[in-house]
Amino acid sequence: MHFGRHISGQFNVELESIRTHVLTMGGLVEQQLSYAIQALNKEDVELARKVVRDDHKVNAMEVSIDDACTRIIAKRQPTAKDLRLIMAIIKTITDLERIGDVATRIARVAIESPSSKERQFQVSLEPLCRQAIQMLHQVLDAFARMDVEAAAEVHKLDDKLDAEYEAVVRQLMTYMMEDPKNIPHILQVMWSARAIERVGDRCQNICEYIIYFVKGKDVRHLGDQSIDDALK
Amino acid sequence: MHFGRHISGQFNVELESIRTHVLTMGGLVEQQLSYAIQALNKEDVELARKVVRDDHKVNAMEVSIDDACTRIIAKRQPTAKDLRLIMAIIKTITDLERIGDVATRIARVAIESPSSKERQFQVSLEPLCRQAIQMLHQVLDAFARMDVEAAAEVHKLDDKLDAEYEAVVRQLMTYMMEDPKNIPHILQVMWSARAIERVGDRCQNICEYIIYFVKGKDVRHLGDQSIDDALK
Repeated sequence: MHFGRHISGQFNVELESIRTHVLTMGGLVEQQLSYAIQALNKEDVELARKVVRDDHKVNAMEVSIDDACTRIIAKRQPTAKDLRLIMAIIKTITDLERIGDVATRIARVAIESPSSKERQFQVSLEPLCRQAIQMLHQVLDAFARMDVEAAAEVHKLDDKLDAEYEAVVRQLMTYMMEDPKNIPHILQVMWSARAIERVGDRCQNICEYIIYFVKGKDVRHLGDQSIDDALK
Repeated sequence: MHFGRHISGQFNVELESIRTHVLTMGGLVEQQLSYAIQALNKEDVELARKVVRDDHKVNAMEVSIDDACTRIIAKRQPTAKDLRLIMAIIKTITDLERIGDVATRIARVAIESPSSKERQFQVSLEPLCRQAIQMLHQVLDAFARMDVEAAAEVHKLDDKLDAEYEAVVRQLMTYMMEDPKNIPHILQVMWSARAIERVGDRCQNICEYIIYFVKGKDVRHLGDQSIDDALK
């Protein structure tokens, strides 16, 4: 990283500590999301309850990292790349917290969902889930190394996630039409699928913050091609 | 406002300019949302196209205000309340931009939606829409005056919006079950309803940033009661 050049050793320590906290938060959110999805797929109500119970930990981390960022700005008056790092962190943790909310929402569906014996349809959210967790894992990895190339790669994965999501929705719609009495339950599954699809958008946001930090270019709202151009 | 006390007159001017831009952005987002909803309700495809076309303006404002905030931090090294104002602004514009996305999503539904002649059901999104726009309008007003009491009032309105949303979903579900061939179209309406419901959550976030700025207390994730306590 770039932290070596500070005159104040204490500043380095503080920046490194915030960065570590973001990675810890990312790890927790990734765990929450996998547990939630596991709970949904295996109908594990206990695990789903654990996810709901642990959501406050994610929230608390967001608040505490945010506070640390504001304090470091006030105290150290960072400029240039240091300031961009802090800005990127402030935005990243907002998206991480929202992914945490997605996990909780999926866990709630797992808790309220009827058991498989009552189900008249089988649509697997497995591939969609696997892709979303993969994207989150890769973007956290890119964040840890502040690797713009990796971030740009992750950014492109969202198209695949969207396509998978569309396929799931089409399948679920067919089941709804075939047997309307399943509609309320299928809608629950559909909301979950949509929530998982949104994880991809959140991961894309984090990719954009990584690029902003490293390259100093704001590539939001620009699409994959402009991101590739920004990295040249 | 609190801007009078700065030694640097130029700093005042810069802060005031950023705040004005946020209010302009808020006004544009409010307009986008009302146009989108109007387009959906009156099946006005032209108006819907305008909303989609103008989304880039909202995005550009987000990027430019964000940039102005980062520059003012680097240049003026604000602390305490000034820094909290800038932090509140950085977060507020993210939520405003997302409300702008909601408007675009609704406009897309209005463009793709079949005309009313083909519709076999009538569910009005009107009350839900009215409430969401009202919430956005009030929170922008609270932001303009940095009025914590008004912010706390808006925060409470979300429960009503959620209840209205639940009622709409139940109604739509009944129509789906009655006539499954309408399912694809009803799902579109349902996604719109959900997007509008989310506007309420975004407005709540902005309420929380107003309280953070004025009171210096982070009331996120705490609920209405804790917000009332924070204002005492």
